Amino acid sequence: MDLDALADEVLHRCDALGRLSEEPGRLTRTFLKPPAHAVHDLLTEWMLKAGLHARLDAVGNVIGRTLGSAGEHRVFVVGSHVDTVPDAGKYDGVLGVLLGIAAAKALHGRTFLNTLDVAAFSEEEGVRFRTPYLGSLAVCGKLTDELLHRRDADGFTVADAIRAYGLHPADVPDAAYPAGSVVGYFEAHIEQGPVLEAKGLSLGVVPAIMGQTRAWITFTGKAGHAGTQPMELRRDALAAAAAFVSAVEACGRSTPGLRATVGSLTVSPNAGNVVPGEVRLSVDVRHADDAVRARAVAGLFAEAETTGRSRGVGGSVEPALDQAAVPCDPGLTARLAAALEAGGHPPEAVVSGAGHDAVVMADFCPAAMLFVRSPGGVSHHPGESVRREDVRAALGVMVRFLEAELDRH
Amino acid sequence: MDLDALADEVLHRCDALGRLSEEPGRLTRTFLKPPAHAVHDLLTEWMLKAGLHARLDAVGNVIGRTLGSAGEHRVFVVGSHVDTVPDAGKYDGVLGVLLGIAAAKALHGRTFLNTLDVAAFSEEEGVRFRTPYLGSLAVCGKLTDELLHRRDADGFTVADAIRAYGLHPADVPDAAYPAGSVVGYFEAHIEQGPVLEAKGLSLGVVPAIMGQTRAWITFTGKAGHAGTQPMELRRDALAAAAAFVSAVEACGRSTPGLRATVGSLTVSPNAGNVVPGEVRLSVDVRHADDAVRARAVAGLFAEAETTGRSRGVGGSVEPALDQAAVPCDPGLTARLAAALEAGGHPPEAVVSGAGHDAVVMADFCPAAMLFVRSPGGVSHHPGESVRREDVRAALGVMVRFLEAELDRH
Repeated sequence: MDLDALADEVLHRCDALGRLSEEPGRLTRTFLKPPAHAVHDLLTEWMLKAGLHARLDAVGNVIGRTLGSAGEHRVFVVGSHVDTVPDAGKYDGVLGVLLGIAAAKALHGRTFLNTLDVAAFSEEEGVRFRTPYLGSLAVCGKLTDELLHRRDADGFTVADAIRAYGLHPADVPDAAYPAGSVVGYFEAHIEQGPVLEAKGLSLGVVPAIMGQTRAWITFTGKAGHAGTQPMELRRDALAAAAAFVSAVEACGRSTPGLRATVGSLTVSPNAGNVVPGEVRLSVDVRHADDAVRARAVAGLFAEAETTGRSRGVGGSVEPALDQAAVPCDPGLTARLAAALEAGGHPPEAVVSGAGHDAVVMADFCPAAMLFVRSPGGVSHHPGESVRREDVRAALGVMVRFLEAELDRH
Repeated sequence: MDLDALADEVLHRCDALGRLSEEPGRLTRTFLKPPAHAVHDLLTEWMLKAGLHARLDAVGNVIGRTLGSAGEHRVFVVGSHVDTVPDAGKYDGVLGVLLGIAAAKALHGRTFLNTLDVAAFSEEEGVRFRTPYLGSLAVCGKLTDELLHRRDADGFTVADAIRAYGLHPADVPDAAYPAGSVVGYFEAHIEQGPVLEAKGLSLGVVPAIMGQTRAWITFTGKAGHAGTQPMELRRDALAAAAAFVSAVEACGRSTPGLRATVGSLTVSPNAGNVVPGEVRLSVDVRHADDAVRARAVAGLFAEAETTGRSRGVGGSVEPALDQAAVPCDPGLTARLAAALEAGGHPPEAVVSGAGHDAVVMADFCPAAMLFVRSPGGVSHHPGESVRREDVRAALGVMVRFLEAELDRH
């Protein structure tokens, strides 16, 4: 079992999948668009070489299996996704899938109690249908009819996409694992952030995935001539918005573990010589503890409504998303941390600020996540990268971890 | 001499010109575009009815004249412009021209020492060629060959536009008044701001037109995932820009008479879940005293370069305009103020924050300006309006003022 060679193979395969795109000149791979056929062919080939029996389910998940002695009613799933955002990097999702195949290859030939499934989920990013997790929802039996009828920008439904690929929406229920048959879920994923790099660590253990609030806030003042409006008679929407942006940053900085962001801000009419009449901005607040997030959000929403008052600027809040935090399974996560320590890696806890398939799986079975250092914290960008030594370290930890979990009663 | 009837005529004529547009559904009238023919026909007709001899010069200015006993070497000019911004109101520029014609009509039949010219300048807004004051520059002999060769968005030069209209660029020098022949310039204009309305006054006297600095400032941080970037590792360009916007507003509020505006602000990549990597914003600073403006600008430019430092965000300044303040003539302005007082109007001084033809004329001859209240401070917008009583008041003041100036040695 040469883990160095397997790590190199993982990286080469990330490159190979990175060449399969629905757009020329950049990597974009959304739910069941044409490159999915080539992706599925490669995954099937690699799974077979790792000793896994591969199948394609009705939503395009490719699932490779090694049957354990306890049969198919005790399955441990290792997975992540193979779709991407537009103009993506090569590692987000794909790295976790290929690490799973490599770990299976390393364990090939040994017999364990539990069945091992390596799942390559067909959809996680939510790009094509503006709703994420289609692949993992299907294996959990939660891909509803409502989701199947959701339409993309061209008017095609999820069901249409499934049919166009050559699969059958009627088979979607068969993609679900029988209740109680999944004993655990593990996902390796690039961190997509700078924490591990800042600490000089290859790997981290994810105790939870942050809950998230998104909202749009509109500040309404009155547009006016920048030359003829005295300061004291202005109702400057941007001046109010600027005070609010500063309040969001201050709230994030003063609340441990909080992430508070104004990422989008649009000024109207947006001319250099016109006092801004309206500003629309986004607020994104995340925390591992829902109560902390709720307190921060309530404070910021109140601030949005009052901050412009002294300027005659109104603030209105339009909530867009309120997603609870998802804790990973404490027992499974503690055993993953032990596997890191045994491999000489400090088990640094890094709360995930981004969503993952583990969000869906954690509601279905015990779930654990491993983060791999993201150089520069770069993610959702062609500049995304991983270090070879970190991939090798992740593989070592996964093999050690799976050896134990696959024999666990 | 029924000033009420003349005021009504002025308002009806503003409506009539407001229907002449180069765009369907909204009022837009740029330099010598097709509606100029109809505009010139109406102006000529109205000037003739007011007893003025009308002529069209080589840049499309329509100039109506009543010869004084001292001949054409002592001319007092009353003027403003008849072009507009895109999607304009009916009164900016046009009101001053039509008040001039109405005042001439009120004075018709009387003989004065000085010649009266009512000038309808063809271009002031700078829309078509992105350079303002083409009409008034021509009468001052300052429409250079460089300006004549400036191109619009379709590649046509100013000279091309003159030829296309049926005029001759070679005649442009003849549009200039002989040196020393203009004894004074007067312009009535809507205030375009809220000062007179806030003070409950119909009219104001303009002591000066503010100097102006414009610049673009770019804040460069680093884009990142809003979920995965801890606050302390961010380089948030918008957080830096927000602090700067607040500093611009504070500078404006704490410096008497200063107007400091961030009117345009663009975030990149401008997605709700991405920490902003770059922000580009405009700064517009105006004041009647150039030294005060220079001090404020120096402070803000320094602030732009340092404000992001604690966040690892760089700020760079790109100056775009540095225009000196233009004082109106103190003597002429004092006599205008006296005419207001004689008419029962407190001679409130309102510094102009916007440019006017008077900026060009003040460099050529003694110039004075009268502001007419702008309801709601609305300007450069279809909602622009004037009150009938204010038009009547302006006309009364102008007649009184011109009676004296036209007989002044």
